[in-house]
Amino acid sequence: MKESVLIVGAGSGLSASLALLCSSKNMKVVLAARNIKKLDSLKKEIGAETIRCNASDIKSVSNLFKKTDKIIGTPNLVVYNASLRFHGGITELDSKKTQAAINVTCFGAFLVAQEATRRMLKRKSGSIFFTGASASIKGFAKSSVFAMGKFGLRGLAQSLARELHPKNIHIGHFIIDGAIGYKPYGSYQTINPDSIAKTYLEFYNQDKSAWSWETELRTSVEKF
Amino acid sequence: MKESVLIVGAGSGLSASLALLCSSKNMKVVLAARNIKKLDSLKKEIGAETIRCNASDIKSVSNLFKKTDKIIGTPNLVVYNASLRFHGGITELDSKKTQAAINVTCFGAFLVAQEATRRMLKRKSGSIFFTGASASIKGFAKSSVFAMGKFGLRGLAQSLARELHPKNIHIGHFIIDGAIGYKPYGSYQTINPDSIAKTYLEFYNQDKSAWSWETELRTSVEKF
Amino acid sequence: MKESVLIVGAGSGLSASLALLCSSKNMKVVLAARNIKKLDSLKKEIGAETIRCNASDIKSVSNLFKKTDKIIGTPNLVVYNASLRFHGGITELDSKKTQAAINVTCFGAFLVAQEATRRMLKRKSGSIFFTGASASIKGFAKSSVFAMGKFGLRGLAQSLARELHPKNIHIGHFIIDGAIGYKPYGSYQTINPDSIAKTYLEFYNQDKSAWSWETELRTSVEKF
Amino acid sequence: MKESVLIVGAGSGLSASLALLCSSKNMKVVLAARNIKKLDSLKKEIGAETIRCNASDIKSVSNLFKKTDKIIGTPNLVVYNASLRFHGGITELDSKKTQAAINVTCFGAFLVAQEATRRMLKRKSGSIFFTGASASIKGFAKSSVFAMGKFGLRGLAQSLARELHPKNIHIGHFIIDGAIGYKPYGSYQTINPDSIAKTYLEFYNQDKSAWSWETELRTSVEKF
Repeated sequence: MKESVLIVGAGSGLSASLALLCSSKNMKVVLAARNIKKLDSLKKEIGAETIRCNASDIKSVSNLFKKTDKIIGTPNLVVYNASLRFHGGITELDSKKTQAAINVTCFGAFLVAQEATRRMLKRKSGSIFFTGASASIKGFAKSSVFAMGKFGLRGLAQSLARELHPKNIHIGHFIIDGAIGYKPYGSYQTINPDSIAKTYLEFYNQDKSAWSWETELRTSVEKF
Repeated sequence: MKESVLIVGAGSGLSASLALLCSSKNMKVVLAARNIKKLDSLKKEIGAETIRCNASDIKSVSNLFKKTDKIIGTPNLVVYNASLRFHGGITELDSKKTQAAINVTCFGAFLVAQEATRRMLKRKSGSIFFTGASASIKGFAKSSVFAMGKFGLRGLAQSLARELHPKNIHIGHFIIDGAIGYKPYGSYQTINPDSIAKTYLEFYNQDKSAWSWETELRTSVEKF
Repeated sequence: MKESVLIVGAGSGLSASLALLCSSKNMKVVLAARNIKKLDSLKKEIGAETIRCNASDIKSVSNLFKKTDKIIGTPNLVVYNASLRFHGGITELDSKKTQAAINVTCFGAFLVAQEATRRMLKRKSGSIFFTGASASIKGFAKSSVFAMGKFGLRGLAQSLARELHPKNIHIGHFIIDGAIGYKPYGSYQTINPDSIAKTYLEFYNQDKSAWSWETELRTSVEKF
Repeated sequence: MKESVLIVGAGSGLSASLALLCSSKNMKVVLAARNIKKLDSLKKEIGAETIRCNASDIKSVSNLFKKTDKIIGTPNLVVYNASLRFHGGITELDSKKTQAAINVTCFGAFLVAQEATRRMLKRKSGSIFFTGASASIKGFAKSSVFAMGKFGLRGLAQSLARELHPKNIHIGHFIIDGAIGYKPYGSYQTINPDSIAKTYLEFYNQDKSAWSWETELRTSVEKF
């Protein structure tokens, strides 16, 4: 049977690269996003399925996995790529939007991991990967919203690695330290999403005798 | 004018010790909690004010600060001590309770910090302290709920330290690595809340030439 | 009997502040340094003893403690403050000087901790503190020499905290994140050594129910 | 021209796996160790060169690189794999052996990195990898010797990553969290060195748009 991947929070950057790479390795691809229209050309290019999903909504995530069950069964790999970020000094931030951002960046990952784990434990194998950011390990000034979400996501990933690695479910947390893109952003070098996707796949193919749970990726010229 | 402290998430352990210590240093004390009945004897003992508050509710926190304004004006010290934790494997956890726990442990701290900062920036001084746990820096197996909340809280605190220290608002994050209590819990040594409170007050009295933003506290016999 | 402190790597900055503060708390002070001439005025001011010592030399450290035994017996507090640093790209650095720097910054701390522990274990109490730097947790470009020494020192301190806290010997590691001084250095704010010394003494007086092993200190306007 | 690798501190475990894997990828292999007799069969198997070297000795490392120059020129990849460890409470440890251990585990890495960088900067490319351990990030009780060496090594690696990544020299630091072996050690699962070697090679082949500098590897059943 073909291996399969479910990417939640799919868009045009890293998730598109991941979808293309997985597809090139003969994996069946399902893409979930709030707005699936933007996924149309990718869908056609690789024969992926797309499912509308609000990753921070309990019911929506439950439905996502029920639909995924019918298309590919239990995915071999689930990638949580959704996040919501905005900057601002603590006194300028909107409270409701802040709560919504924590829900997308962190709580949604919990929901997706829960549904994925329920299925993977039955099959006794699987990989669940989370996309982090510089803000996963450093709380920058005026970035408290993103720091709460991404620190929280890292706490989830680390806890799940300890719980699930012994059950043959591989957890990966990737700290993407910089903006993703194919071209420099002015004088700023961006991280090529194809290169990131390659590292995700290498993690996915690690032997369980030597599993990583986390790595950082940045351009060679990034200050850190 | 008397210095003052607002403790959010007040109960019988650390927050009571802090209230007593602050009061003994001649500070005016306001205690906020969902259930303020349990604070009655403490209230009488030190002449504190108590305010009912749901720390994860936007409106409730807004009201808390309006009431506090009338009683003590802008507090010199605000301590966020609220948290909600429960254990369980990822597949056993209730999604709604998990979301509520993140809201109390992390989002409520954001709300309280926001209201406090608005006032402290006008006065150009203040201290905002957050109570962390072992789970702030280590995601234990079956502790994903607490890890999400406490990692997120630490991200908030670190981000605020970078934003607000230059504006003369001192941020403190305390990793309390163990159970708090006055007596051993079976063979397990607990951390004396009076000793923790002492360290909070020492942080509060640090000169801004040499501010800490974080420290860990555990018993001398704790494994870590 | 009077409490006592031994400060190794004593000079004019933090160690002088510590010596003065300890003396003001009625502690007997012994100061050790390669060059003890520079300690003359401090020695007179507080009635301290000074001992010549090369902290990275096995025999010299052994002699230091034998002399200290006769003057104050086993010190209640031992502070390791010696370090050797210089900057430079990896290809420009002198190998022998690099080795000497690691020996002073890290290996010497081991020697001092070993001699101190031998004595403190007999008395069943004591505190051993190590002075770290920004380089203890961040390896800056062109700072590999200092990073090796200070990372290594932190590894020593953390290991000793795990070994010795249960034996009632308190280990403290202080990350001094910035230059120490009483006046700004151009537009750069320095950390007041008296303020640092105050935090050392507060650590020293912590109750063993709630021991820290590490904290960071920086000015309120420091970027980090 | 063939790519090449120099492995310093070569023995029978990880370094042998790395040598075999590099050789299978058509890389020329040079192995350096204090005792090169033990490398004889590996040498024959893959047509490697072996060079006697004491990695903590300035002159010996200088000679190693002069010999390497003649055999393979500037290596594309240099791996520092040497370390010296022993356990013991702080009061039981031998001071001279402790110093020697720091020299092998940390200072020798500096020497090797320095010689390698001098050459790689001229060619404007290269990779320098360091083998870490659990003790690189956690100072265990009675493990102060190894903690000093491995923390120090990590400080070196992080500093060099910041200095040399912008100059197209890729630094890798690998935290091998557990014992290496092909078979369980009693009930204890070991990390397969072939699996570790695979991750080293994937790092080596990373595109500089998305470089890691560090990752951790452990078995799926390791507690951490």
